[in-house]
Amino acid sequence: MLSKKQGPSRGFSDSEYENRTERAQRLMASSGIDAILLTTEPEVRYFSGFHTQFWESPTRPWFLVVPAVDKPVAVIPEIGLAGMGQTWVDDIRCWSAPNPEDDGISLLRELLSTLCVKHKKLGVPMGHESSLRMPLTDFKTLAKELESIEFVDASAIINELRSIKSEAEIDKIRFACELTSAGFKALPTYASIGQTERQICRQFKCDLLQRGADGSPYLIGASGFGGYDNIIMGPTDRKLGKGDILIIDTGTTYDGYFCDFDRNFAFGESTDEAKRAYSIVYEATEVGIRTARPGVTHSELCAAMWRVLENGGALGNEVGRLGHGLGMQLTEGASNRFGDYSVMKPGMVITIEPGMSFAPNKLMVHEENIVIREGEAELLTYRADPEMPVIY
Amino acid sequence: MLSKKQGPSRGFSDSEYENRTERAQRLMASSGIDAILLTTEPEVRYFSGFHTQFWESPTRPWFLVVPAVDKPVAVIPEIGLAGMGQTWVDDIRCWSAPNPEDDGISLLRELLSTLCVKHKKLGVPMGHESSLRMPLTDFKTLAKELESIEFVDASAIINELRSIKSEAEIDKIRFACELTSAGFKALPTYASIGQTERQICRQFKCDLLQRGADGSPYLIGASGFGGYDNIIMGPTDRKLGKGDILIIDTGTTYDGYFCDFDRNFAFGESTDEAKRAYSIVYEATEVGIRTARPGVTHSELCAAMWRVLENGGALGNEVGRLGHGLGMQLTEGASNRFGDYSVMKPGMVITIEPGMSFAPNKLMVHEENIVIREGEAELLTYRADPEMPVIY
Repeated sequence: MLSKKQGPSRGFSDSEYENRTERAQRLMASSGIDAILLTTEPEVRYFSGFHTQFWESPTRPWFLVVPAVDKPVAVIPEIGLAGMGQTWVDDIRCWSAPNPEDDGISLLRELLSTLCVKHKKLGVPMGHESSLRMPLTDFKTLAKELESIEFVDASAIINELRSIKSEAEIDKIRFACELTSAGFKALPTYASIGQTERQICRQFKCDLLQRGADGSPYLIGASGFGGYDNIIMGPTDRKLGKGDILIIDTGTTYDGYFCDFDRNFAFGESTDEAKRAYSIVYEATEVGIRTARPGVTHSELCAAMWRVLENGGALGNEVGRLGHGLGMQLTEGASNRFGDYSVMKPGMVITIEPGMSFAPNKLMVHEENIVIREGEAELLTYRADPEMPVIY
Repeated sequence: MLSKKQGPSRGFSDSEYENRTERAQRLMASSGIDAILLTTEPEVRYFSGFHTQFWESPTRPWFLVVPAVDKPVAVIPEIGLAGMGQTWVDDIRCWSAPNPEDDGISLLRELLSTLCVKHKKLGVPMGHESSLRMPLTDFKTLAKELESIEFVDASAIINELRSIKSEAEIDKIRFACELTSAGFKALPTYASIGQTERQICRQFKCDLLQRGADGSPYLIGASGFGGYDNIIMGPTDRKLGKGDILIIDTGTTYDGYFCDFDRNFAFGESTDEAKRAYSIVYEATEVGIRTARPGVTHSELCAAMWRVLENGGALGNEVGRLGHGLGMQLTEGASNRFGDYSVMKPGMVITIEPGMSFAPNKLMVHEENIVIREGEAELLTYRADPEMPVIY
């Protein structure tokens, strides 16, 4: 029984963090960067292993600095000392936070002015998908106090590292995919006509926890007669009736790693139009899974899937892409979109997510998760049914 | 039965958003600000009602602009059009995202250059607790293209608005507090010696969902013999044994509003030292609840609680404060800390959270949620037991 399966071991060995840090330092050396300043949950966790839900509180900033040599240095609120003390990081500098007058800024200034001597360049993720998790006024103060140091964009370095997953990372994602696949399989055994989107999503969420998930930070449900009009809102108190289609899409986690995929369900019966749309998007998914391999660009992958959808009568796609990278975040890294000419490499985990409008305000979206391998991709999710499952 | 209680109605009436916007516009007028640019989930939701879990994906930026007059204007990825179309916002401008070359920047430039004419001042939250949820390079591009417009900090305006809750907001927080209080009461009926922190927290999370919670974005568990050494990590696979103390702290939500409080449990028996620490922190909580009222500063409230803890032998407090504001986020607004001279006002929702180290690496932290009212505060949580509950 899948529900009895134990998850892979928690955390990572120190060597995983050593590898990540060394890879970063090689890229930093070739870019002439003395240190990288990180402020967000996945970035700090990637290099330190510091794993806490406390980021939910926006009050205190947290900093991790990757120097040109040696281990990362943590500059964090005192409340995190016990937790950071359990990671491989040795140099932990704390202040009593919150302290709006100086929330870590003088500690950072001291550290960075010591580290950024050779090239006088500090890397900070500033590009696509990044954000700076600290008050902008504090960042400006820091930049002013370190005015002899140039702040340069480090997004490309971080993305390059994180996009290629280790086998230990893939194991965690695979487990999240497997338990969620089993959960989707079981859903028709308790869902029924007359229940609301919210009731079904709630039971599904509990079921995933019981199968070993840590949580489902993303779990939406959307429905409508003959199709749904969005894939990011809900669940609502809308009752499922005959002829409705329900999509559930979830980012469920295990040990800080996400799966991200959806399943469609018909209630009682479905329109021929919806059945046809399901088949077309199913076929586009097949093509996507077969096309994704080393050396292929995300743009080519997108084109291969889009061709199937277009031939099937797609009216458009408002999602803006047909899949994306996946890992410590629900979406990360590359996009399967026209114009993304980055090339797939072994170890990348991505979603194959073709979708289309097949009638006004009616969408059909499928999604599976794969790892790029030499040759054919490895499917992490249990493939959706070729025909839409029906709930009575 | 609490578990059968229906939650308050979802969402808010349009008049709630009108009030929020008008209050903002009054403060903007007195500060000579033409418009405010918002980029984060709670800020966008506060003024628009746009409520989605999709913020979990970091890929696409989302913008809401509050002009000097009229309704807010949304500048958002096309994937959000159906959802934003259900809110009170009329003017919704979309682009096909992700588009790293221009992720909403040209749309923003056009809108802001039209709006920021009178004072040539754009407000952006940049102060304590704020962050900018968009790539820094995009923000720099925008600032450069709008160089005749001054970007000023709007944190104080946003904090002033959000810190005073409407009764409709308080109803949602109260419901989250009540269902979680009932959940904590029920916990000893299923938890037992020999279970792990993770097992207990998982069952608690499911139980909260069944009582009507939408989720528990924050739910930590920490334990140790005679006390725990942190309140932000875990849960882990540590098994609870005789003499252990377990703290569970949770930010559980209903319709986008948080409760945030904890409970302590002894397993089998507890040391006299831990029992004594529990009594002292319980008494500090009593003092805090009685002290919190209009006109009192957060610093005074902190001092009143700290006096009890210090007299009880507190060795320190690494949390950095004894409570904080609460609402759309797990923590928001004021801090009960020395030096925070802001004054409590009716309608503020805060946590009373005294804590102390009572021995090396042993903490005791209590927490309750209250609303500041004329006269005495209203308690939203069901008060913790005066003696530590024991689980066998």
